[in-house]
Amino acid sequence: MQDTISLLTRTPAALDALLRDLPETWTLRNEGENTWSTFDVVGHLIAGERVDWMPRVRMVLQSGETQTFEPFDRGGHTRESQGKTLEELLDEFARLRSGNLDELRGLHLRQGDLERRGRHPAFGVVTLSELLATWATHDLTHLHQISRIMAHQYRKAVGPWSRYLGVLQCTGHSS
Amino acid sequence: MQDTISLLTRTPAALDALLRDLPETWTLRNEGENTWSTFDVVGHLIAGERVDWMPRVRMVLQSGETQTFEPFDRGGHTRESQGKTLEELLDEFARLRSGNLDELRGLHLRQGDLERRGRHPAFGVVTLSELLATWATHDLTHLHQISRIMAHQYRKAVGPWSRYLGVLQCTGHSS
Repeated sequence: MQDTISLLTRTPAALDALLRDLPETWTLRNEGENTWSTFDVVGHLIAGERVDWMPRVRMVLQSGETQTFEPFDRGGHTRESQGKTLEELLDEFARLRSGNLDELRGLHLRQGDLERRGRHPAFGVVTLSELLATWATHDLTHLHQISRIMAHQYRKAVGPWSRYLGVLQCTGHSS
Repeated sequence: MQDTISLLTRTPAALDALLRDLPETWTLRNEGENTWSTFDVVGHLIAGERVDWMPRVRMVLQSGETQTFEPFDRGGHTRESQGKTLEELLDEFARLRSGNLDELRGLHLRQGDLERRGRHPAFGVVTLSELLATWATHDLTHLHQISRIMAHQYRKAVGPWSRYLGVLQCTGHSS
């Protein structure tokens, strides 16, 4: 639990340090048709803070297995991001994450609470412990995706080195 | 060129924001036998700053294709890291990178310089432009690797969500 919160706390600052004021080559380009740019990914992280993680935590604690989580709207980020700059999205992500972690800490969850169960629309029964671990790993899956999206922009520029650069061989799908 | 320098400038701060004082679950564990931990990766980035990138830039400018780059010692990070804390490595990486970028900017490279050629021990002729693009993409390949190493530690903890988390399906090799 402390490991999870430690990571969740750091992600906004890490993305900020990497992305703020970075040229648009890195932030607005994607990996091809129907793929996300880095800008899109940050919008998606914001949507998760708003409608996914803490609402699901609350639902587990309040209703257990009797209520099924809302499916996560993977297109929700488009509305979140419209007309905003990447810098505004980074600020918003940091603010929302900080508020959510305040709320999470305020729940004073004990070991026994982590075994409490909820109902996922596709998987069926899941535990609060799995939900919280997924929140942190979801940050990592999108950091992984962002590094891959950015590297994609230099795929040709690196010439023969492309065969040595693992990120250019990645077939993991992050969205 | 400016895109490359923009990214190279940000990597140390991004890794610092993500990793400093993070629990050892995230930083000292690896992905299994003969794989690297996050700590090892930062040591490898330091080795690159010392013996790889700028020495190769200098060699291209001074000797062109007549001299072959030293092969990069991928085990060199072990010596760099011995007895140090991750926080010391992060400081060292930031200091070395900053010095190297000062030197790179001081070269006042022009468009024509980027076409100058060097000789890679495996690929043969490469351009300065490709070398610089590779330096930046190498940062991304290791950010990609770090996010995968960290996610690996939660592979079981996420339960059924593992199938939705792209980073856990990644087969790109980064070392």
